[in-house]
Amino acid sequence: MPAFRTSRTVEFADTDMAGIVHFANFFRYMEAAEHAYLRGCGLSVFHAWEGETITFPRVHASCDFERPARFEDTLDVEARIDRLGRSSVRFAFTFFKGDEVLARGQITAVLCRVKDDRGLEPIPIPGPIRELLERGPGPGPV
Amino acid sequence: MPAFRTSRTVEFADTDMAGIVHFANFFRYMEAAEHAYLRGCGLSVFHAWEGETITFPRVHASCDFERPARFEDTLDVEARIDRLGRSSVRFAFTFFKGDEVLARGQITAVLCRVKDDRGLEPIPIPGPIRELLERGPGPGPV
Amino acid sequence: MPAFRTSRTVEFADTDMAGIVHFANFFRYMEAAEHAYLRGCGLSVFHAWEGETITFPRVHASCDFERPARFEDTLDVEARIDRLGRSSVRFAFTFFKGDEVLARGQITAVLCRVKDDRGLEPIPIPGPIRELLERGPGPGPV
Amino acid sequence: MPAFRTSRTVEFADTDMAGIVHFANFFRYMEAAEHAYLRGCGLSVFHAWEGETITFPRVHASCDFERPARFEDTLDVEARIDRLGRSSVRFAFTFFKGDEVLARGQITAVLCRVKDDRGLEPIPIPGPIRELLERGPGPGPV
Repeated sequence: MPAFRTSRTVEFADTDMAGIVHFANFFRYMEAAEHAYLRGCGLSVFHAWEGETITFPRVHASCDFERPARFEDTLDVEARIDRLGRSSVRFAFTFFKGDEVLARGQITAVLCRVKDDRGLEPIPIPGPIRELLERGPGPGPV
Repeated sequence: MPAFRTSRTVEFADTDMAGIVHFANFFRYMEAAEHAYLRGCGLSVFHAWEGETITFPRVHASCDFERPARFEDTLDVEARIDRLGRSSVRFAFTFFKGDEVLARGQITAVLCRVKDDRGLEPIPIPGPIRELLERGPGPGPV
Repeated sequence: MPAFRTSRTVEFADTDMAGIVHFANFFRYMEAAEHAYLRGCGLSVFHAWEGETITFPRVHASCDFERPARFEDTLDVEARIDRLGRSSVRFAFTFFKGDEVLARGQITAVLCRVKDDRGLEPIPIPGPIRELLERGPGPGPV
Repeated sequence: MPAFRTSRTVEFADTDMAGIVHFANFFRYMEAAEHAYLRGCGLSVFHAWEGETITFPRVHASCDFERPARFEDTLDVEARIDRLGRSSVRFAFTFFKGDEVLARGQITAVLCRVKDDRGLEPIPIPGPIRELLERGPGPGPV
């Protein structure tokens, strides 16, 4: 499935006393790229679908950190779906600073409908949503 | 109204590249102390009251920063209500490291009921809640 | 002094369980706008000046919240310097969503040099830096 | 190696608009538990060792999310070292709410010395530090 790039500038509040981006913020950055991907597909995190609200809670997230990111660095975050299961979507992310790879990560989410009691129930990804995800958002940015 | 103290240890993720607690985190710390105060009064941020959900959205927040806080510092946060209006509550906070004052801040919140459309409508603070707020949470911690 | 606008999209991680942007994040947003302003002036938060590192620690921050901001809202943040003292700079910020004002805030910072022991010492704002701040960054974005 | 437990209460600012703790905050929580573990061993994140500063930058972090955590939940975070390599330490974490497991995660860090240019160079874990890590912090809390 196609890769999609977004770009962001590291903010001061994202750094820690080691002078680099705090590692937990890479997960925020990944999520923002994932959401830009979904927007680019015409979807949203909380999407209305046939009278129900559907959402993508995450079941797994991981990141390998190769080089630090610093204040005012421009990061390019490449997102692609590298596995599309019956209910689950796995996004793979690569963080670039120029040509240099800083980090690689993954987020796996499961499509769920929001029940009346606000609980979540996994559901198969409907065909039309699957098609939008497979086609991807185009070259971006969104 | 009585003062109430809670204590917290500065975490690594709260620092920034200047080597100190990022100033925005003082607002998170104030809110946590406010919520501990409310819990100590037998209240909560989202409280059920006569069949309605009531909540305290903030209309103002401010902080004066005198000395920095650093990683692994133990901070004592003193919270007191310094003004109780018809619908509004103003909390005043003082941050101590030992005997030294690091910062002083304020948060003003307005009691609102959550409407069916999830909008908020200010309401007068009911008598029994006013009494709980005036009596305060006792010496803490909660 | 001239106003300067930057724009940002609210990210999911910026929201809280009330369904709106957590109030502490408005301070992060203000700081990002301040830093964009400084960059637009050819300055930076940690700036080298005549062989010394100078920086702008904040001594005060405040915000009045008028309307909530929500996930995926595009916020325009207008920053201007509304007081330039001997050592201090006060930034005023207005948050817009379209034509609607969501919040107004202030950050006051004091120019300091970083001493050898990493302590900070206030210094008068040097003439050339004062001129850059007064001229402002141009219409933006940066 | 021994397990070590710390406890924390979920704060309002840790939640997101889905009404649960934002997944990136689990990584902040893990790090805080790791640092409590190190403190319990008599170590710190930035430790002086034979005239050098040594630190533990992370090279990998992951988390599996089984159940959500919510505002004011008390979470018990169990940390243990489950692999101690020549330069690397892998911490494994389990998040409990009462007896229920909410999430399991890992952080792998590599011991580095801070070079004069602030760069980092991996070094073998010195024997005395290895012994402290193997012995662990005792039953906690710290």
